[in-house]
Amino acid sequence: MDTRKITEITCPISISDYPEITMAHGGGGRLMNDLIGKIMLRVFSNPILDARHDGAVIAVGEGRLAFATDSHVITPLFFPGGDIGALSVYGTVNDLAMCGAHAKWLSAGFIIEEGFSMETLWRIVLSMAEASMKTGVSIVTGDTKVVDRGKGDGIYINTAGIGIIPPGIDIDPSRITEGDAVVLSGDIGRHGMAVMAIREGIELESTIRSDLAPLDSMVRDLLREELDIHCMRDLTRGGLASGLNEIASMVDSSIRIEENLIPVQDEVQGACEILGFDPLYVANEGRFVVILPRENAERAVEILRQHDSGRQAEIIGFVEKPQYADVLMTSSIGSERIVDMMSGEQLPRIC
Amino acid sequence: MDTRKITEITCPISISDYPEITMAHGGGGRLMNDLIGKIMLRVFSNPILDARHDGAVIAVGEGRLAFATDSHVITPLFFPGGDIGALSVYGTVNDLAMCGAHAKWLSAGFIIEEGFSMETLWRIVLSMAEASMKTGVSIVTGDTKVVDRGKGDGIYINTAGIGIIPPGIDIDPSRITEGDAVVLSGDIGRHGMAVMAIREGIELESTIRSDLAPLDSMVRDLLREELDIHCMRDLTRGGLASGLNEIASMVDSSIRIEENLIPVQDEVQGACEILGFDPLYVANEGRFVVILPRENAERAVEILRQHDSGRQAEIIGFVEKPQYADVLMTSSIGSERIVDMMSGEQLPRIC
Repeated sequence: MDTRKITEITCPISISDYPEITMAHGGGGRLMNDLIGKIMLRVFSNPILDARHDGAVIAVGEGRLAFATDSHVITPLFFPGGDIGALSVYGTVNDLAMCGAHAKWLSAGFIIEEGFSMETLWRIVLSMAEASMKTGVSIVTGDTKVVDRGKGDGIYINTAGIGIIPPGIDIDPSRITEGDAVVLSGDIGRHGMAVMAIREGIELESTIRSDLAPLDSMVRDLLREELDIHCMRDLTRGGLASGLNEIASMVDSSIRIEENLIPVQDEVQGACEILGFDPLYVANEGRFVVILPRENAERAVEILRQHDSGRQAEIIGFVEKPQYADVLMTSSIGSERIVDMMSGEQLPRIC
Repeated sequence: MDTRKITEITCPISISDYPEITMAHGGGGRLMNDLIGKIMLRVFSNPILDARHDGAVIAVGEGRLAFATDSHVITPLFFPGGDIGALSVYGTVNDLAMCGAHAKWLSAGFIIEEGFSMETLWRIVLSMAEASMKTGVSIVTGDTKVVDRGKGDGIYINTAGIGIIPPGIDIDPSRITEGDAVVLSGDIGRHGMAVMAIREGIELESTIRSDLAPLDSMVRDLLREELDIHCMRDLTRGGLASGLNEIASMVDSSIRIEENLIPVQDEVQGACEILGFDPLYVANEGRFVVILPRENAERAVEILRQHDSGRQAEIIGFVEKPQYADVLMTSSIGSERIVDMMSGEQLPRIC
């Protein structure tokens, strides 16, 4: 592009249709995909970004690095099973793990609202330090900004991370082929429902704990076994449904999953029913899918089940030749349902 | 540290003295230094972070990378000479340049307030793309979050960046020695006063334009000449005074500068007088200091002056044996003044 002309390009999103940013533009569904696809990916286009991994894979010298970022705006800051501090570390560690990378270095950018409690900041920072130690990453650079009272919401934390991709790893969604298995690492919907249950003040028999967890040790064990992994994706905003749709949209195939095989805690199912959510679309923070050849799938499940976060790992479906929809689900009563990309907002400020 | 104990550590900042975060904790002065030094650097301590460069210098394989981050919360979003988009790219490119690195890859994390204008977002994103092209960096990964109306302030942008440090570069403040010259790359105070003049609605004879500029080409020319640079620092929050104090605090020497030699535009001086600011403490976004041996200093000035942003480069002082203060200034009337680290807040939300 000619740099003198760049500021004259017309916005590809219709300003009359969408004059303003809505909560749904950050919700993980179709509007967010539109915003990112039509604005960010188009304007910033380059071969690394265009690959649309969870993180960027960049060649440096003889090796390859992964580079990923996430801003965290979750409310409330503390929830059963975690807090914004641990989330901000694991979130980026997990994005790097999805590229097959071992996370090594993190940056931390804090945007703090005037009046925020010093003691709460301290607790959050300690939680980040603890999460860093558990995953072996170092926070090596940072930045702190303060915004006026009423111009923030306590604290927002951005992390960016660099990980090292071991030689020989070739994770690349374009290698997905018909017959590949879809392995899910555990039960879904806990993070989103843990946060929503607090926000909505729902009384449940037992508290739902977020599934927040680092995924790097599971991924390392999978890679050590030399399984021929074609794609991994963590199931954050937009949940399993959005993750599978994103994968399917990158290849000329459909994905079929079986409802019966997808683990959902009873408490999570109950909270979803009360609040009108579908667990397929609810955010997770410690779950991912692995797409790999059918003959490697049983072994992948065995490896995942050796980890606390992977005890309920299952083969939930397969890649098929293109169907009338990208993602299809055979329900427990045998009927077929399209699992579409989520439209609009479902769970705001969940990460 | 024992990970089981980490959450029991007591906050090193007195909660009774500072129960809440204040604007000054982000202002670039003593309180911010306290927050970063006592909390962030202590809890996250590791050899790379402890070096306290503008960015982290990390060894990868045979080479070295620099890694830096900045969140941008400036208000207003557009100002004479720039906007938050260009600022978010140049800010991180410049931090990397201060490590002697050539910026290559950026991440971009957007936190957007519900209701933000789509057209304004588009203008900002185009400005980022233009700034990226001008500096040869690629935005390779990103994240977009939306927060509820009243929980943000239009848009906040975090960028993190990775740069490559060429072999043979040994920029290290511990190499600063008595007799080293302090070279300033241009006139000071323009960015801060450009923003404040708009915010305060001050009428000036001519508009102050921010000095916002990428510093990487100047730095590359300095490094190409094989000048023995000991330290570089860009003069953002807290301005020249804070930059020099930060440098002096890392070495057992004092820095003496001459007021007469520090270029300040008349308009900037005037705005500072109206608003009660001292240009030494006002933020810049396209100015830096270079500390290097006296015999290399004239050549450094010559090189800087070949660039638009370096036309007014000057040797403004020298490193001395330790005095009664870290930074001293000989004033235009020959008297001596301590140039202390700024206390508290001066210019909030300037970057």
